[in-house]
Amino acid sequence: MTRLRVGVIGATGAVGQKFVELLEGHPWFEITALAASDRSAGHRYSEAVNWIGSAPIPASIASMEVVSLNTELPCDFVFSGLHASVADHAEPRLASEGYPVISNAKSFRMHKDVPLLIPEINPDHTALIENQDWGQGGYIVTNPNCSTVGLTCALKPLHDAFGLEAVQVTTMQALSGAGYPGVPSLDALANVVPFIGGEEDKLVHEPNKLLGRLVDGAIQTETITISAQCNRVPILEGHLECVSVKLGSCVSSDEVCRAFKSYVSPIRTLELPTEPDNFLHVFEDERFPQPRRHSELGGGMTVSIGRIRPCEVLDHKFVVLSHNTVRGAAGGAVLNAELLLKQGLLQPRKAHVPHNIGTAEGS
Amino acid sequence: MTRLRVGVIGATGAVGQKFVELLEGHPWFEITALAASDRSAGHRYSEAVNWIGSAPIPASIASMEVVSLNTELPCDFVFSGLHASVADHAEPRLASEGYPVISNAKSFRMHKDVPLLIPEINPDHTALIENQDWGQGGYIVTNPNCSTVGLTCALKPLHDAFGLEAVQVTTMQALSGAGYPGVPSLDALANVVPFIGGEEDKLVHEPNKLLGRLVDGAIQTETITISAQCNRVPILEGHLECVSVKLGSCVSSDEVCRAFKSYVSPIRTLELPTEPDNFLHVFEDERFPQPRRHSELGGGMTVSIGRIRPCEVLDHKFVVLSHNTVRGAAGGAVLNAELLLKQGLLQPRKAHVPHNIGTAEGS
Amino acid sequence: MTRLRVGVIGATGAVGQKFVELLEGHPWFEITALAASDRSAGHRYSEAVNWIGSAPIPASIASMEVVSLNTELPCDFVFSGLHASVADHAEPRLASEGYPVISNAKSFRMHKDVPLLIPEINPDHTALIENQDWGQGGYIVTNPNCSTVGLTCALKPLHDAFGLEAVQVTTMQALSGAGYPGVPSLDALANVVPFIGGEEDKLVHEPNKLLGRLVDGAIQTETITISAQCNRVPILEGHLECVSVKLGSCVSSDEVCRAFKSYVSPIRTLELPTEPDNFLHVFEDERFPQPRRHSELGGGMTVSIGRIRPCEVLDHKFVVLSHNTVRGAAGGAVLNAELLLKQGLLQPRKAHVPHNIGTAEGS
Amino acid sequence: MTRLRVGVIGATGAVGQKFVELLEGHPWFEITALAASDRSAGHRYSEAVNWIGSAPIPASIASMEVVSLNTELPCDFVFSGLHASVADHAEPRLASEGYPVISNAKSFRMHKDVPLLIPEINPDHTALIENQDWGQGGYIVTNPNCSTVGLTCALKPLHDAFGLEAVQVTTMQALSGAGYPGVPSLDALANVVPFIGGEEDKLVHEPNKLLGRLVDGAIQTETITISAQCNRVPILEGHLECVSVKLGSCVSSDEVCRAFKSYVSPIRTLELPTEPDNFLHVFEDERFPQPRRHSELGGGMTVSIGRIRPCEVLDHKFVVLSHNTVRGAAGGAVLNAELLLKQGLLQPRKAHVPHNIGTAEGS
Repeated sequence: MTRLRVGVIGATGAVGQKFVELLEGHPWFEITALAASDRSAGHRYSEAVNWIGSAPIPASIASMEVVSLNTELPCDFVFSGLHASVADHAEPRLASEGYPVISNAKSFRMHKDVPLLIPEINPDHTALIENQDWGQGGYIVTNPNCSTVGLTCALKPLHDAFGLEAVQVTTMQALSGAGYPGVPSLDALANVVPFIGGEEDKLVHEPNKLLGRLVDGAIQTETITISAQCNRVPILEGHLECVSVKLGSCVSSDEVCRAFKSYVSPIRTLELPTEPDNFLHVFEDERFPQPRRHSELGGGMTVSIGRIRPCEVLDHKFVVLSHNTVRGAAGGAVLNAELLLKQGLLQPRKAHVPHNIGTAEGS
Repeated sequence: MTRLRVGVIGATGAVGQKFVELLEGHPWFEITALAASDRSAGHRYSEAVNWIGSAPIPASIASMEVVSLNTELPCDFVFSGLHASVADHAEPRLASEGYPVISNAKSFRMHKDVPLLIPEINPDHTALIENQDWGQGGYIVTNPNCSTVGLTCALKPLHDAFGLEAVQVTTMQALSGAGYPGVPSLDALANVVPFIGGEEDKLVHEPNKLLGRLVDGAIQTETITISAQCNRVPILEGHLECVSVKLGSCVSSDEVCRAFKSYVSPIRTLELPTEPDNFLHVFEDERFPQPRRHSELGGGMTVSIGRIRPCEVLDHKFVVLSHNTVRGAAGGAVLNAELLLKQGLLQPRKAHVPHNIGTAEGS
Repeated sequence: MTRLRVGVIGATGAVGQKFVELLEGHPWFEITALAASDRSAGHRYSEAVNWIGSAPIPASIASMEVVSLNTELPCDFVFSGLHASVADHAEPRLASEGYPVISNAKSFRMHKDVPLLIPEINPDHTALIENQDWGQGGYIVTNPNCSTVGLTCALKPLHDAFGLEAVQVTTMQALSGAGYPGVPSLDALANVVPFIGGEEDKLVHEPNKLLGRLVDGAIQTETITISAQCNRVPILEGHLECVSVKLGSCVSSDEVCRAFKSYVSPIRTLELPTEPDNFLHVFEDERFPQPRRHSELGGGMTVSIGRIRPCEVLDHKFVVLSHNTVRGAAGGAVLNAELLLKQGLLQPRKAHVPHNIGTAEGS
Repeated sequence: MTRLRVGVIGATGAVGQKFVELLEGHPWFEITALAASDRSAGHRYSEAVNWIGSAPIPASIASMEVVSLNTELPCDFVFSGLHASVADHAEPRLASEGYPVISNAKSFRMHKDVPLLIPEINPDHTALIENQDWGQGGYIVTNPNCSTVGLTCALKPLHDAFGLEAVQVTTMQALSGAGYPGVPSLDALANVVPFIGGEEDKLVHEPNKLLGRLVDGAIQTETITISAQCNRVPILEGHLECVSVKLGSCVSSDEVCRAFKSYVSPIRTLELPTEPDNFLHVFEDERFPQPRRHSELGGGMTVSIGRIRPCEVLDHKFVVLSHNTVRGAAGGAVLNAELLLKQGLLQPRKAHVPHNIGTAEGS
C-alpha cells in the first residue's frame, strides 16, 4: 500500500514539529517534504529545528533536508503550521499551484468558502471546497483555534439536543498554545496572565461557523451569543475551560450529561486512524478533568468533560478539557486530512499514483 | 502609648503564621499569647511551628511559649486562624469567656447575629454585635472567605451605582489558600484542579450578606444571583477572578470603570493602619492584574481590577485580583479589629488599661 | 502462552500504581492480586486508589478487589511498592511463605544476601539468592534507590574501563520521587529544598554494592569514595545529577565518552521486554539531557548522559538523567523480574503451571 | 542634604529596572537620568519599559523621559545595567567623558585595572581605580556575576581562616538571572536546563580575582582550583549552590561553621545604607536555606549558608543561597557605589555640589 506524500510547511515551528511527531508511522500519510523559511532551507531538519518534543525526532525525518517554502514541493498535499502572517500569502499561492492545504493557521478560517472543520462536528462542511476556485485542484481547509475546539466539541451535543442560546466561557490555557519561545518564563511561572491577544474574539465567532448548517452550498452561521475570558496559566499542555450555557429548552443536568454521553460521532464508521475511541469522555469525579492527568486521553484527541451541574445564572455549567497542540492543532489537522481522503478529496498528484489506501469505492 | 494585648489562636497554622507576620510592629496591637493544639503547647513558638513565611519569625515571637487553647489567655481579644472543625466549639467558648473573637474561620460567617465584615464595604454591620449574648462582653466577628473578598470589593461600587442582578465568576485560586501542607505538589505543578470543596457555595452566599443593608439591627440579605466556578492553579499568592455582571441599569464600560475609580471607602477618615492608600486599583494595561506582580499592592490589601469591557451575554466583564492570605484572611481580620477598636468595641479587659491609642473621644 | 501471576503489594501507593501501569499488557506477567493496607482491602481498586497517573487505570485492574496484605495471595511472585516501615516485616513474611519478592523498598537493599540489582550492571548478583534461606523457595530481590540508579548506570562503564576512585554528585530530584501526597506544593513551587532525608547516605553506599564483584557467592563491595548533595526541585519526573569523577587512569573526555557509548549491556541477548534499545544515551547538545524532554527515552528505561568534559578538581564531569519512577523504581523492578525469569528463578507456584514463556532451555 | 545625581543606563532592561526599584528612597542617591537605546529614547519611562517588578514603578520615575545613551547625562555617576555587547563600547566612552561607571556588565570584570568588587570581601580593591586613565576623572568599577557572588561570600571566611585549595560547585540558578524575556517558559516549567552559556567559566575565574590581594597597586590573583556545573531551575529569584571545599588545614565542620559566623565585614563601621545587618546567615535547620523562603533576607543582601558537614571526597560541603538580582546584580552595585562615596571616590560633577552626605572628613 502506497501512502500519500505529505509536505509540512512551517516545519520547524512548534506546530510543524507536532505534525512531524504525529505523522510518524501514520498508515496513510508519509512526510516527503519539510518546508520552512529561507533561513532554514538547505539544512538537515535536525540542525534547522530547535526540537521541543520529549521523544526524539524520528530518524527518517531528522536527516531530511529542509526546503524553501518557495520551491515546488514533492508531495500530494501540505499540512500548514505557518504563522498567519506568512500563511496569508503562502497558502493561497500553494492552493493555486494545485496543493490541497490542510492548515492550522487562522488566516482563512472565517472565509466563507473555506471549511472550518472538526470531523466529529461538521464533516459535511468540506462541500465548501467546491466553491473554491484556485485552479489546478488546490484548496484550503482549516481547523479551529485551539481554545475553540474543546468548547465547540462540548457545545455540539447540547446544540443538537436542546438548542443553544448563550455561552459564557473562561479559559485557562496552556503555555504551549503560545508556541516557542512563546511566553517568557518570568511571566509564566507562578503567575496567570488574564489576556491572550485575539483569542476571545475567535471563541465568539468560530463556534458559530462550526455549528452552522450547510444550506445550498453555503454555511448558515449560527447566532449563539458567546462571551469569552481567556487566561494563560502555567501548565504545559491542555486548555481547561469553565463553561456556562443557556439552552433552548428546560432540561436537567442529568439530561445534559446524557446528551454528552449519547452523542454519536458522524464519522464513527469511517475508521480514521487519528479518531479516538472516545470522542467525548465524561468524568464523574468532581476533581476531574485536569490538564496534566487527562490531556493525553485518546492520544490527545479525546475531549474531556466534567462537573456538569446547574448554573444559577444561565442553565448549566461544566468544565471542558482538550489537548491544545494535538486535538487543538496538529492532530485536528491530521484528522481533517484523513476525512478528506475518505471523502475522495485527497489523491496523488500527477504521476505519483498510490493504490487503494482505504478510500471508498469510486471516491 | 500602650497597645492592646492580642492572642492568636491556631497560631501555628498557615493563617496563624500570617497573623504573626502582619502584627509585627503593629502600632495598636501586640501579641501576648499564642495558642494552639495541645501537641504544640509548652513548646517555644519557633519549635512548634513549621514556619512557611519568607521573612524570619519575629525574634520576640519566636521565643514565646505556645499555650493550650484551653487555658486562660492573657490578652484583650483574639485573632482566630483555627480550622472550622475546631472553631465550631472554641470560638463560642472564648466569646462566652468574654473575649472578642476576630475570626477567619467559616464557622459563624453566615450566622445572622455575627458580622461578616469588610470595613470598606459594610462597617455598620458591626452593629450586629449587640445582638450577640455570650455574657461578659465577648463576641464573634468574621471576615469572608478568601475568594469572596476580592469579588465583593469589586461588586460593591457597581451595586451602589447601578444595582446588581446577576454575577458569573470563575476563580483561579492560589495554592496558599489551601493552607499547609495543603495541595500535594503532584496535583499542583503544571496542573489545574477544577474543584475546591465548598468554595463555590461560599461565593454564592457570602456576597449577598456582605452587600446587605442593616435594617432594624438585622441584615437584609441581598438577592443577587451568583454562579461560581472555582479552580486551583499553580500560583503562590493571589486569587484571580473572571467576572461577568448583569446590572440594574444600562451603562457603558466607561461608567463601570468610573464607578470603581470613584468609590469612596466609608472608613477613609479613620486612618486605620492596615487600610491601603488605594482600596481599589484599576489597571489600564490589558495584561494586568497578574497574581505574581500585583498581589502585594497596598501591602496585599489593595484589590486590583482590570480588563473592564462589555460582556456579550451579561452586561460587563472584568478581572479581579486580591491577595488571599492578606486581604482575604489575616490582613482582613486585622483591619476588622482596627475598625472595631475605632468603633469603641475593643478595649483592655479587666485591670489591664491602655491609654489613648487613637480611639475617638468617648468611643 | 500462559503468563506468570503477579501480586502487587502496596498497590495503592505511588510505586504500586506505577507497577499497575507498567504491567498493563506485559507479555510475561499478569496481575492477579492487588494487596494493600486493611483500610483499602475489600474495595475495588478504582475506589481504593487515588490514581495519579495520566492514563486511566487499565479496565481489568480497576474492577479488581484489593485484598489485605495478610491474606494468601493468588500469585506466583510479588512486586513490592511498600513503604520501608511496612516492608521491614511484610517482605520477610512473604518470602518465608514461598513468594519471590521483587522489591522497591529500601529495607533489605544492603543485606549481604539480598541482590541489589540493575540487570545491565550486575545480573550475576542474583546468585546471592541461593544464600537466602526462607524455606519454601521464597526470596527477596531489590532495586536501588531512585537517585542511585542513574548514577550507577553512568559509573559502571567508567569503572570497567578506567577504575573509579572518587565521585562527587549533586542531584536535582523530581517531586514524584517523594511519592503521594509527598512534597507540599508550597514547599515545591518555585523553590528548591536542599535536603532529602536519608538520600545522600544511599548514594554513598548503594553504588559500591552494585559495582561490587561476586566472589565465592558473596559480594565484594567496592570502595569508591562518594560524596552526595541531594536537592528536591520543582519537576515532575526525572532525577538529574551533576557528577564529577576521579578515575584510576588518565584519559581524555573523548575516551570517557567512548566508554559510555561502547558499553555492552550483559543482558543484551536476553531480549527482556522492558530493556530499552538504548541503555545509555549520550547527548552531544550541551543543553541536554533535560528532565521534561528526555526522561521518557526508551520508555523511561534509558539513562541519558551529557556535557562530558574535564573537571578542574577531579578528572571529568558530566550530567546524568534517569526516570525516577520507571528506571528508578517500578520499571527497574519489572526488568529485575524479567531477568529472574530468564535465569529460571521465577516459576509458577504449586499447581499453576504456565508453559514456555520465553525462558531459555535449561535456565 | 543633597543627594548625588544618578544616571541609570540600560534603564529599561531587567537589571536597569532593579536599579530603579532599589534606588527608590535611597538616602544618598537620586535618579536624575534614565538612558536606554534609541528605540526607547524620547518616551516616558512608564511607556518605554516592560516593567516586570511586583511593586509599581515609583511615581517620580514613571514620568521621566528616557534619554539616549549617546547624549550627555545630567548626573554625577552612572549605574550600568547594559548588556555586555553594548557595555563593551559605552562604558569606556562614559568613563572617558568623566563619569564614574558602576557596572553590572561582564565586559571589564577581569580587566587588571578594574575593581571587581564586593565591599564585604575586598573593599581595598578600589585602589585599582588610580591605575585607570580615562581622563576627566571617570572610571569603571564592576560587581561579579550573580552566581559568583554567593559563592565568593561563602569562600572568603574559609580562605581567611584555613586557606582554600579546591572548590566544587553545582549551581541551581533562578530564571530571573537570564533577564527578560530570558528563558522561554516551555524550557523552564517543570524542567531543568543543565547549561548556562559562559557561566561556569566566570565561576572559575572571578572568585580568584575577588579573593586576590592588592600588592603594589595590583591584584595578585588567587590560584584556587574551582570546578563549576551550572543549571537553570524553575525558580524566580535566588541562586542556590552546593559547594564542596578542600582546605589548607584539617578542621572540623564546627570550625567551618564558626568561621562563617565570626567573619567580620571590613565595612561594618561605614554604615552603608544597603549593607544588611547580617552579611552571612547560617541556618541550623537542614532543610534551609531555600530560594523562595530566604532569598529576601536582609533585603536580598544577606548571603545564606546551610547544611555544613564533612565531604567524603574533599573536606567540607555546604549550601549557599544569594539573591541573584539584588546581592548578585543591582543591589551589589548600589553597595559598591555607597562604598565608593564613603571612600571619597564619588562626588558631584562640575557645578553641582551637594553638601555633607555622610562622607568622612577629608575623604
